[in-house]
Amino acid sequence: MFDYTQLATLSAILRHGAFDAAAVELGITQSAVSQRLRALEDRVGQPLVQRGTPCTGTALGQRLARHAEEVGLMESRLAATAGLDRAGPRRVRIAVNADSLAAWILPALADAQAAAPDLLFDLIVDDESHSASWLRAGEVTAAVTSTEAPPTGCDSHPLGQLRYLAVASPDWVARHCPDGVTGDALRRAPCMTFDPKDRLQMRWLDREFGPGKPPPTHFLPSPRAFHDGALLGLGWGMNPEPLIRDDLAAGRLVPLRPDRPLDQALYWQVSRRMAPAIAVLTQSVRKTARLHLH
Amino acid sequence: MFDYTQLATLSAILRHGAFDAAAVELGITQSAVSQRLRALEDRVGQPLVQRGTPCTGTALGQRLARHAEEVGLMESRLAATAGLDRAGPRRVRIAVNADSLAAWILPALADAQAAAPDLLFDLIVDDESHSASWLRAGEVTAAVTSTEAPPTGCDSHPLGQLRYLAVASPDWVARHCPDGVTGDALRRAPCMTFDPKDRLQMRWLDREFGPGKPPPTHFLPSPRAFHDGALLGLGWGMNPEPLIRDDLAAGRLVPLRPDRPLDQALYWQVSRRMAPAIAVLTQSVRKTARLHLH
Repeated sequence: MFDYTQLATLSAILRHGAFDAAAVELGITQSAVSQRLRALEDRVGQPLVQRGTPCTGTALGQRLARHAEEVGLMESRLAATAGLDRAGPRRVRIAVNADSLAAWILPALADAQAAAPDLLFDLIVDDESHSASWLRAGEVTAAVTSTEAPPTGCDSHPLGQLRYLAVASPDWVARHCPDGVTGDALRRAPCMTFDPKDRLQMRWLDREFGPGKPPPTHFLPSPRAFHDGALLGLGWGMNPEPLIRDDLAAGRLVPLRPDRPLDQALYWQVSRRMAPAIAVLTQSVRKTARLHLH
Repeated sequence: MFDYTQLATLSAILRHGAFDAAAVELGITQSAVSQRLRALEDRVGQPLVQRGTPCTGTALGQRLARHAEEVGLMESRLAATAGLDRAGPRRVRIAVNADSLAAWILPALADAQAAAPDLLFDLIVDDESHSASWLRAGEVTAAVTSTEAPPTGCDSHPLGQLRYLAVASPDWVARHCPDGVTGDALRRAPCMTFDPKDRLQMRWLDREFGPGKPPPTHFLPSPRAFHDGALLGLGWGMNPEPLIRDDLAAGRLVPLRPDRPLDQALYWQVSRRMAPAIAVLTQSVRKTARLHLH
């Protein structure tokens, strides 16, 4: 049996990355924060926090903090269904891929918060093929992922396909493809890649023109920078359709090959144990996905 | 003396995160890639790549890859000044804070690329108080940072102040501050925090209303999500002025306290050894900063 006051203290330290901020949040002194943490570390026989700026959790520290937050969510649901009062917000950790965060999921979070004003969201951003591993490790309660099969103890809801279009600025096309958009031209001209995990440009290029050499590429690990980079003519790249609709309509971006999108299936996966506590969020996410995904 | 063919192979493996993609880029077989890497690992007596999906560099592997890229930049400058031909693009690694990437730096990169079309940018996104450590570790050639004093061997150019405004949607203000924007109201209502390193909201709140308890917060580690979250009424937050000008003008966002911004001084720091090779970029960054920063 854990001491949940100690666990809440650990969770606050890791959320703020600092003992002083945790002390302010909990309304206790910094030395009380240190004492509670030390007591918990003695209890488990392992360090739970790496001291630094910011402080970060050891693997076990992170697991215990998540556990405390999940118990908070469950208490909150218990209080609601049993008609009890419960003070304090409910914190939901979600792993989501950068493009979903940029392109469609925020209205779902705003919807869920309107229905349940005590919800607070901690978002973890990772590639869609890696977000499921956060769920598997018990680090998050739910994840938007490209992996269909859910980890043990989790449910998977298909959300639809996030559509990507290969686009560039008209100026980029005029400069690099004076004789038309050919595979040769695209393998010589600069493209954009989100990060080394991002294979979308190569997948599309190989599918459309046959396998070949990767083009020279910039690395722009931010959806906004990726989008702005296309507008500014830094390179071409696969952009999520919901983000570039206005740019296509206004001619600020042009598709390299019209009607040749790349679709990425996405799933909402939820820890089955926590599913009732975040049912309102699951409902909002599924509803919003229907508006933006194919 | 290193074998630069081996170093270029290491650099390609780490850039793509995969042996097969590195082989395609270099136009050699995958087994030739493995052999070159093994020869280099034998030479230094340490593993340089952690095999996985994606492959990542060990600390030494990353240092060697950066060294190879810097030598490439220097060769390129030598070729240009000596009137020699040099094949292949020049790759510049830059550490930049997420807000600068979202708010103002991309036009500088596009400018520099227009002047030097063979430039390719690898951007590393980190907090402005941590970006200097990438430079200190030799991982990047230049950095946008909030630290004035440059690391040894680097020069520092003041860029001006990135101005942050505390903003929320009109709907959020009506809901959470019915009796006006007071410190009490702001400490009870949900705010947004970029990640645990982000102290901007607390700094502004403490400065404006005196030290106190941190408000309940969402964590939205993406500048676009942070901005969209404010528009959707998830919470209030400190947003960079260049990003929200249109929203303020259209009344989609309102300042919580007009004329009470928080200014963050930024510096462009460059490895002195590499400064001549990226002079065109430094010039574009300084020029663009003058347009967007105070």
